[in-house]
Amino acid sequence: MDFSSKLLENAVNEVSRLPGIGKRTALRLVLHLLKQPKENTKYLTEALSLVRNEVKSCVKCHNISDTTLCDICTNPNRNAELVCVVEDIRDVMAIENTGQFRGVYHVLGGKISPIEGVGPQNLQIESLVSKVKNGEVKELIFALSSTMEGDTTNFYIFKQIESYHITTSTIARGISVGDELEYADEVTLGRSIVNRIPFEQSLKG
Amino acid sequence: MDFSSKLLENAVNEVSRLPGIGKRTALRLVLHLLKQPKENTKYLTEALSLVRNEVKSCVKCHNISDTTLCDICTNPNRNAELVCVVEDIRDVMAIENTGQFRGVYHVLGGKISPIEGVGPQNLQIESLVSKVKNGEVKELIFALSSTMEGDTTNFYIFKQIESYHITTSTIARGISVGDELEYADEVTLGRSIVNRIPFEQSLKG
Repeated sequence: MDFSSKLLENAVNEVSRLPGIGKRTALRLVLHLLKQPKENTKYLTEALSLVRNEVKSCVKCHNISDTTLCDICTNPNRNAELVCVVEDIRDVMAIENTGQFRGVYHVLGGKISPIEGVGPQNLQIESLVSKVKNGEVKELIFALSSTMEGDTTNFYIFKQIESYHITTSTIARGISVGDELEYADEVTLGRSIVNRIPFEQSLKG
Repeated sequence: MDFSSKLLENAVNEVSRLPGIGKRTALRLVLHLLKQPKENTKYLTEALSLVRNEVKSCVKCHNISDTTLCDICTNPNRNAELVCVVEDIRDVMAIENTGQFRGVYHVLGGKISPIEGVGPQNLQIESLVSKVKNGEVKELIFALSSTMEGDTTNFYIFKQIESYHITTSTIARGISVGDELEYADEVTLGRSIVNRIPFEQSLKG
């Protein structure tokens, strides 16, 4: 692209470095800002700078938080001994949305992925293991994505804590509610038959 | 969405005010910035602030420019009497990309659109009419989108300059190069038959 303005070109280049945003979309977004009042750009840039420079992680669960301990970890009504291991804040938000979980979280910050250069040392695994070691955890629920990286991460953590004999579980894999059987992939369908549950239990969901 | 951090929520809200970006995408973008070095957010916000606060319009063609007169308007090799009327900078970039146009542009900044509250007074129409009035223009090429709003804007401008007897033209509408006839809509196909061109001329393109 050939820009008539260096400032515009620079802004488009910076915006297009965001994931999933190409040059054309970036140009559309920057031109939108140029048409809007200057305050809008000010609010946007201030909010981004602020979140980048000021945001903290909860020292206990490593979720994004404005305070040293997050609202979930400080909530006395949550079971601190039931710990759900997730990848990032989006998974916490998704599980919180269901209203079905009254334990606490442990946010790893990613999955083990040699291709992307993410090893165990880049994730919050050590602090999870020491929680288990200190007897703070009764049950660990693995709730990572059902991918090669997710399974690897689950297995790596499991091996580290195996000897402490706590309950470990993983969220159920199966046919999504509302899905047609014929369109399910065979691995999911196979697992959902092997891991079938008593019919009475399915009525509670 | 229920955020664990007000700073994060605020940033996501601001990003999701951009056109075509929903809350989920906004969250993905902000989390991406949080994983990147702080400098990246700094570069992004600085580039946006700078372009919003410092960018100028060329006083002659109203295209976005870092200088009072843009590179196209100051280029002595361009025919200043051949003026192409476009909606915004993206159209200038698209036409420049073809390498087929050696005149100059006049950027309206939009199209007349009562639904979006854009009237002739919000566009750079007056300055175009006075260019024509002052005898600066020999031919005006209308290159707006082929929509109701584009046609309305063309017609509005045409009525204002009709009495000055300059040449006016509009870019050709027809079947796109590489397109199959059977998939063309009937209006386009109809126009392309009515406005057919000598075969020898088509060989030059």
